[in-house]
Amino acid sequence: MTSPYETIPLYPLANPRSIAFFGASNRYTAMGTNQLNSILALGFEGAIYPIHPSESTVLGMQAYQDVQALPEVPDLAVLVMPTRLVAETLAACGRKGIRHAIVVSGGFKEVGGDGVQMEADLVAVARRHGMRFIGPNCLGVVNPHHRFNVTFANFEGRPGFIGMASQSGSLLTQMFRYLEQFQIGFSTGISVGNEADVDLVDCLEYLAACPHTRVITLYIETIRRGRRFIDTARRIAARKPIVAFYAGGSEAGRRAAFSHTGAMAGPDRLYDGVFAQSGIVRADSLTELFDFAWVLGQCAIPQGNRVIVQTHSGGPGAAAADACSRNGLSLPPFAPETLAKLRPLIPHTGSMNNPVDLTFSRDPMEYFRSIPEVLLQEPGADSMLLYCFTPRKNVMRIMQAEGLSEEEALQLAAQMAEEHSRKLADLVRQCGKPLLGFSYQNAEELIIRKILESGIPILPSPERAARALWALVHYGRIQAKLGA
Amino acid sequence: MTSPYETIPLYPLANPRSIAFFGASNRYTAMGTNQLNSILALGFEGAIYPIHPSESTVLGMQAYQDVQALPEVPDLAVLVMPTRLVAETLAACGRKGIRHAIVVSGGFKEVGGDGVQMEADLVAVARRHGMRFIGPNCLGVVNPHHRFNVTFANFEGRPGFIGMASQSGSLLTQMFRYLEQFQIGFSTGISVGNEADVDLVDCLEYLAACPHTRVITLYIETIRRGRRFIDTARRIAARKPIVAFYAGGSEAGRRAAFSHTGAMAGPDRLYDGVFAQSGIVRADSLTELFDFAWVLGQCAIPQGNRVIVQTHSGGPGAAAADACSRNGLSLPPFAPETLAKLRPLIPHTGSMNNPVDLTFSRDPMEYFRSIPEVLLQEPGADSMLLYCFTPRKNVMRIMQAEGLSEEEALQLAAQMAEEHSRKLADLVRQCGKPLLGFSYQNAEELIIRKILESGIPILPSPERAARALWALVHYGRIQAKLGA
Repeated sequence: MTSPYETIPLYPLANPRSIAFFGASNRYTAMGTNQLNSILALGFEGAIYPIHPSESTVLGMQAYQDVQALPEVPDLAVLVMPTRLVAETLAACGRKGIRHAIVVSGGFKEVGGDGVQMEADLVAVARRHGMRFIGPNCLGVVNPHHRFNVTFANFEGRPGFIGMASQSGSLLTQMFRYLEQFQIGFSTGISVGNEADVDLVDCLEYLAACPHTRVITLYIETIRRGRRFIDTARRIAARKPIVAFYAGGSEAGRRAAFSHTGAMAGPDRLYDGVFAQSGIVRADSLTELFDFAWVLGQCAIPQGNRVIVQTHSGGPGAAAADACSRNGLSLPPFAPETLAKLRPLIPHTGSMNNPVDLTFSRDPMEYFRSIPEVLLQEPGADSMLLYCFTPRKNVMRIMQAEGLSEEEALQLAAQMAEEHSRKLADLVRQCGKPLLGFSYQNAEELIIRKILESGIPILPSPERAARALWALVHYGRIQAKLGA
Repeated sequence: MTSPYETIPLYPLANPRSIAFFGASNRYTAMGTNQLNSILALGFEGAIYPIHPSESTVLGMQAYQDVQALPEVPDLAVLVMPTRLVAETLAACGRKGIRHAIVVSGGFKEVGGDGVQMEADLVAVARRHGMRFIGPNCLGVVNPHHRFNVTFANFEGRPGFIGMASQSGSLLTQMFRYLEQFQIGFSTGISVGNEADVDLVDCLEYLAACPHTRVITLYIETIRRGRRFIDTARRIAARKPIVAFYAGGSEAGRRAAFSHTGAMAGPDRLYDGVFAQSGIVRADSLTELFDFAWVLGQCAIPQGNRVIVQTHSGGPGAAAADACSRNGLSLPPFAPETLAKLRPLIPHTGSMNNPVDLTFSRDPMEYFRSIPEVLLQEPGADSMLLYCFTPRKNVMRIMQAEGLSEEEALQLAAQMAEEHSRKLADLVRQCGKPLLGFSYQNAEELIIRKILESGIPILPSPERAARALWALVHYGRIQAKLGA
């Protein structure tokens, strides 16, 4: 049975069973060869038909002189070829019966001059044959759940929950490893290019229906169908969060966007209004775009803006409190029952105010379990930030000094990290409140890696954690307003 | 001959030749043991005298029952012991003739009550014996150039150029690996604690004189000697940049700071005024504090605010342009001679506006050399941002497809990275303008690592790069105003 998701026009573009590929050769530095290689490298399981005028094989696969010669009608054509050949090639695909295409080639509307007419020709060809296409001037689609990556760079990551539609293709293709360091990844990413046919609105529809996508991200230089965009986003945002970064807000950003995709960007405040109406969470930077997606995809939505900060280090704790305050989050005092439960757990040099500061944490068991357990039950708070730092070398040295071999010490450390992170994740799940970690350490540290793997985000600074928590609170308000 | 630097009161605190250590034992989980271990782990070359009431050896070293029994008068005493024993121990050190101490112990003014009087007693003891001391409630000093690290965590980094005085000790001790990922490190870091004696002003004086320190960073929750602080900072800032992060600007930050060090923080705007008068570059986050220090320590100071952005990826380029614009930096158009030189280097799908966007860069030689060479000569620009991304796996695959073994390909990649980064660094040195890279990749990528090693900072996002460049421009204005 076909699910509604599979009937969406974009479905075959992101989940093709078979592909005709134009523009790959055996010259390895060519863009097309690179992109076909990306498909092969991820282990695409469908049929691939390279089309090449003279080569009989391309990258070890049988090549065909033209699309008419193919033994079947593929779901999708990918075109990476000189600008002037694109329209006629697309027409040939149409005649063969192909109904979906990705046009990677640039040199169209974004360069002006003849390019404008050539793009109009492309659209006319597609209309004539009832085709839908992404591009031109794009990098295509990555869908790791389908082992499909047509973008320039090899996929280096994992199938994840972040859907993306991007007016910058290279941004998409260059974030694979970046996301992987946080143990997250894309569900499906679409580089929309000039949006001559498929545009952001179509992508929103697709990503809203996509079962792998928990949160939708947008990189925007311009919005082409304003009214439709707002209505569509608003409908989706009630049940699936949408986060957007807009690059054209300043004069220089606007000029850069125009060079890039020929987009006529509007003033910053206009976009503030559009995002507010659309129920979209606006990110102020690319970094925030992915931070917000991360926490929105992994955390419960808090009931309000009251947060508890737990630290064993005054500086990061104060910085987190300061950043929370600047983002409209409040740090409430604790109820008497919370204070009573905390008292035996906090040394006298520490602080039972909010931030809770242990100063020196003797026992990771208390730091990652007993204390968060108390704090997550505080009735006057909706969320929690937890500072994470482990002096790995010191811990190893202590264990070795107590008679363990290096191997035993490593094993014990691994076992403890595993246990603490699992219990912490259990606690968080049970209480239904979001908990975000923050740290200047990264997944190279065992305990950080284990906590990340357990599904708790650890942001790389107190300020980013506070902003990410703001995004959760803000989305909670959007949902309430849209009546989810 | 003694240099003026060596006569500064703080010199023996950061460069002791010999240490009396109170509070270490053979119990490895104790704080004092940990800190003595930190000293040993960095390979301190002077004499260490553990003082312990009952053990005859501590961590394999001969221990002494009391300070009077020591065979010499050490330069420095380090005290990690219960609060109530600190004053009398300090007095015993004074009687022995020790003139410098680090008091790690907490439980003084920061906890209120009896603690206030105990801190006053401590100061009285020090005055009586002509002693200078850091603390109480601090983590001490790290000076990797002297192989001296008394802080809680093992030093995991390299001797560097960032001086730091911090009202958060753990912040200092927890940034070792963080800085190392950017191939930078501390010159000397001082955790000032409650500043009962040595305070931020003393640290400024010391770090200004320290030849290893190229830039001074401050983590501030309060400033105790306002007038003196401003005068001192202003004098130093004309020739050595000072960057500060203030954590007490918001209500929650203020309360957190009070819990932490008993500091009475002031409103945000007051501190804006103090930093402006002092010639200090203000960082809005801890991340910025170190970003700013990094670029101020490694880059030329630009003559003005005009920047060129070079990218092969539209999204990061537009985001960088937008962030520059939001930070008061301008992206000028190019002079005719620059355009003439650029033309043969940019493909027709690319853009010769600013940002310069190659779209697809065929040749790293052009990307990292020919094009920056042209752009750094543009007479209408003062600085440059360069987007860095390498599709490592693709490059490797191309080289292997062209017949190289994996080993040969790796070797060729290493050789190319080495050469490109060296030439790029030469170019930058010669032109006297700052060039900052930005990337979502990190030092795991060979070319990123090599460029970092060559002394060119690569910031982890376009927004951080734009802010860091702003800091350089801002410091240039400060210098001009202070008449360096």
